[in-house]
Amino acid sequence: MAQTIAVIGGGVIGGGWAARFLLMGWDVQVFDPDPDAARKVHAVIDNARRSLPGLSDVALPPEGVLRFCDTISEAVFGAVWIQESVPERLALKRKVFQIVQEFCAPDAVIASSTSGFRPSQLQGCATRPAQIIVAHPFNPVYLLPLVELVPGAANAPDFVDKAAAVLTGIGMHPLRIHAEIDAHIADRLLEAVWREALWLVNDGIATTAEIDDAIRYGFGLRWAQMGLFETYRIAGGEAGMRHFIEQFGPCLKWPWTKLTDVPELTGTLIDRIADQSDAQSGALSIRELERIRDDNLVTILRGLKARDWGAGALLNAHDRRVEGAVALPDDLRQPIPTLARAVPLDWTDYNGHMTEARYLDAFGEATDRMMLLIGCDADYIAAGRSFFTAETHIRHLDEAHAGTVIRIDTQILAGAGKKMHLFHRMYAGDRLLATGEHMLIHVSLDTRRACDPTLALAETLARVAAAHAALPRPQGAGKAVGARG
Amino acid sequence: MAQTIAVIGGGVIGGGWAARFLLMGWDVQVFDPDPDAARKVHAVIDNARRSLPGLSDVALPPEGVLRFCDTISEAVFGAVWIQESVPERLALKRKVFQIVQEFCAPDAVIASSTSGFRPSQLQGCATRPAQIIVAHPFNPVYLLPLVELVPGAANAPDFVDKAAAVLTGIGMHPLRIHAEIDAHIADRLLEAVWREALWLVNDGIATTAEIDDAIRYGFGLRWAQMGLFETYRIAGGEAGMRHFIEQFGPCLKWPWTKLTDVPELTGTLIDRIADQSDAQSGALSIRELERIRDDNLVTILRGLKARDWGAGALLNAHDRRVEGAVALPDDLRQPIPTLARAVPLDWTDYNGHMTEARYLDAFGEATDRMMLLIGCDADYIAAGRSFFTAETHIRHLDEAHAGTVIRIDTQILAGAGKKMHLFHRMYAGDRLLATGEHMLIHVSLDTRRACDPTLALAETLARVAAAHAALPRPQGAGKAVGARG
Repeated sequence: MAQTIAVIGGGVIGGGWAARFLLMGWDVQVFDPDPDAARKVHAVIDNARRSLPGLSDVALPPEGVLRFCDTISEAVFGAVWIQESVPERLALKRKVFQIVQEFCAPDAVIASSTSGFRPSQLQGCATRPAQIIVAHPFNPVYLLPLVELVPGAANAPDFVDKAAAVLTGIGMHPLRIHAEIDAHIADRLLEAVWREALWLVNDGIATTAEIDDAIRYGFGLRWAQMGLFETYRIAGGEAGMRHFIEQFGPCLKWPWTKLTDVPELTGTLIDRIADQSDAQSGALSIRELERIRDDNLVTILRGLKARDWGAGALLNAHDRRVEGAVALPDDLRQPIPTLARAVPLDWTDYNGHMTEARYLDAFGEATDRMMLLIGCDADYIAAGRSFFTAETHIRHLDEAHAGTVIRIDTQILAGAGKKMHLFHRMYAGDRLLATGEHMLIHVSLDTRRACDPTLALAETLARVAAAHAALPRPQGAGKAVGARG
Repeated sequence: MAQTIAVIGGGVIGGGWAARFLLMGWDVQVFDPDPDAARKVHAVIDNARRSLPGLSDVALPPEGVLRFCDTISEAVFGAVWIQESVPERLALKRKVFQIVQEFCAPDAVIASSTSGFRPSQLQGCATRPAQIIVAHPFNPVYLLPLVELVPGAANAPDFVDKAAAVLTGIGMHPLRIHAEIDAHIADRLLEAVWREALWLVNDGIATTAEIDDAIRYGFGLRWAQMGLFETYRIAGGEAGMRHFIEQFGPCLKWPWTKLTDVPELTGTLIDRIADQSDAQSGALSIRELERIRDDNLVTILRGLKARDWGAGALLNAHDRRVEGAVALPDDLRQPIPTLARAVPLDWTDYNGHMTEARYLDAFGEATDRMMLLIGCDADYIAAGRSFFTAETHIRHLDEAHAGTVIRIDTQILAGAGKKMHLFHRMYAGDRLLATGEHMLIHVSLDTRRACDPTLALAETLARVAAAHAALPRPQGAGKAVGARG
């Protein structure tokens, strides 16, 4: 049964929390006094629906139920997690916690999205301080895995563990911060950059567009995959980190940043920034920019996933947790389910349609799964044997869009000796989208030539092939390109 | 004929410059008194050879010639570009410029990789100040497009234009900085983060690994594709940039960074950072980290390229410049070259082999090119008609590795009415790697159903098909999966 989260405050951040929990199968109860809140939250959820599900290589659980509530008491009813994302005013947040604690379960987690306040500040005049913790996410909350989990002295260790487990369960990376400090970690780094950037604009050194280019064409690319210290460790080269620090140590004394002052946010400076930002990005609406950003983030995240590194490694770990153990079905008289996933944004063209080559990505995933199911797993491959695809025949029968949940059933047409002959059918609902017919050859990874599989693998393969021999031969199998199917 | 660059200083940065110019077809002459310089430069070039060529969707020009020189005078001989990357000491740089100017062409560009010095400082006691400019790149120089091009008052505008054109020509983005300032732009932002990060480690708030996670799981992902201001513009939502600044303005007065001081780099702090960095990254050698980083960067860059955004849009623009105009060959009696490119890192598996689905990526690119050549270009598609692939048959005959230059020749087996039947052959040198047979259907993009092409397109297609009818029918064409070829 679905668990319930209460989202208090439905802005960009609150909406992002609602979207992530909802798409991960939680029921979501939103409270926001803004009459426009439902529209805004739905806009964020729409963005999330087109981008988040395809990040997973497995199908997500069914969406939870979304409900807008008139009162905080209604929103927190039955909730095991309460996420506060109201404006950054301490008195307001404290007031919200008082009302929340009046009505919520005493063992629920009350998490604040605060960018800057320390947990002890938030817990200050609460009824049950031990129930309140900081869980600070990053926009867009439904795509970026980072959440700074900051306990105060009042929080028990097992409470913090429980909070971390929930965040991990919705695909996030809870970065546990061990000492309270204003603005936690990431926003301190961001604030440092922000202040320096304001000076550069203020002093007429650079425009907002030039500063953004200095980031996204340079160190921004590095930071999507390795942070500051690991990057500098590499820059230090063979001499290492110690050398790097010693070499650049003197620069700390040089006037490389405006350290001692912050610019006054005069009307003139605000106008300058707003005007430069319009010149830089004004040709696109915020909604268009959001979608471009999400397309880019999904593409970057899935790229890192293929490399199993950084945020991509987090996503892979999440998929494995969601999917659990993998095994052949007991009843082998039907084609075997080998894939169920949403079409990710990076598989689509500018029209939002799944592009030609991605059908083979999906069939390739299904083939990998079939190999795994008959015993060709990581250990088998590490021992020097595998299957290579020798031939592929794809028939495109219908189109698929980003976000469409596709599934593949696989029939073994033949599996004996060095050969495995597979037939995949790809569906969206009961629409047949495409078929993939594949001849695989069992090979030695040393000689790169055909060789016999192990006895155990051969026996499993033969067992499935024998069961599938009773199935009707699929339409389109054994046909050449252009032949009538 | 290849142009010549002199690389003065062969460290990580100098080696990166050497690699980028070399792979873009320039002859490279390196001077570095370090007896180990050749080995170090070759190590960087090896990294570049496995990562850079595949970034392009077209084949790069042949590599230039690399030569190590015993003297600066020898290195600058014949050079139209001289890149100085010696250690960050002003007196040393000035000394190098004096020697360089004694021997180099008076109209060559002398560019400094300095992270921090202003051009007027570098030009200070030079023979010809107008010849010296700052061109500050980012590591790895062979992958990251950003280069800060900083002129001083002594540089003539057309000299700066000329320098920018050279940098664009080797696939970089020259960010022209209009006012001299210590550390230019990007390093000021980096220095601000670095100082704040040092405080966090110094004060025991976070470890190097935690700070890196705070970057790469959060804002680092954002900054690979949009900078600070564009990101905040989106965060401001419908209320816009002005609202965002006003909302977060007060934080500037809050203690969200350590503004007024820098930490002392004591032995204790250096030890702490070095030890934490070992714990974080020490399981991998610097060389391993470099390759992982490059794999990641190529994946991210090529993902952005598919979205034609940010650094990816730069790469696409570079490809178009390299390739020039595209047209059918005059002699149509041979299969038509439709692709020539290096296998990019993101097309390979953990063994470095091109993975199954990427063959269809390559064949898909070749099909797109064939469509373009017969007149199905962006305008044709915008007018509502295109070709869809209905069927594909791939035969895998041999393997390809990252960096291998592959080419595809395309034979039209039939092209009449609504159908186009293509046969692609993929080669590495004269090794046949794979064939791709494809049936395409001409469709209306409105109805998504088959329809006739325009008369002009039909005539061009028929002309090529008629010429190709005289070619022998390719081995493997018209075969079903598993049939003997």
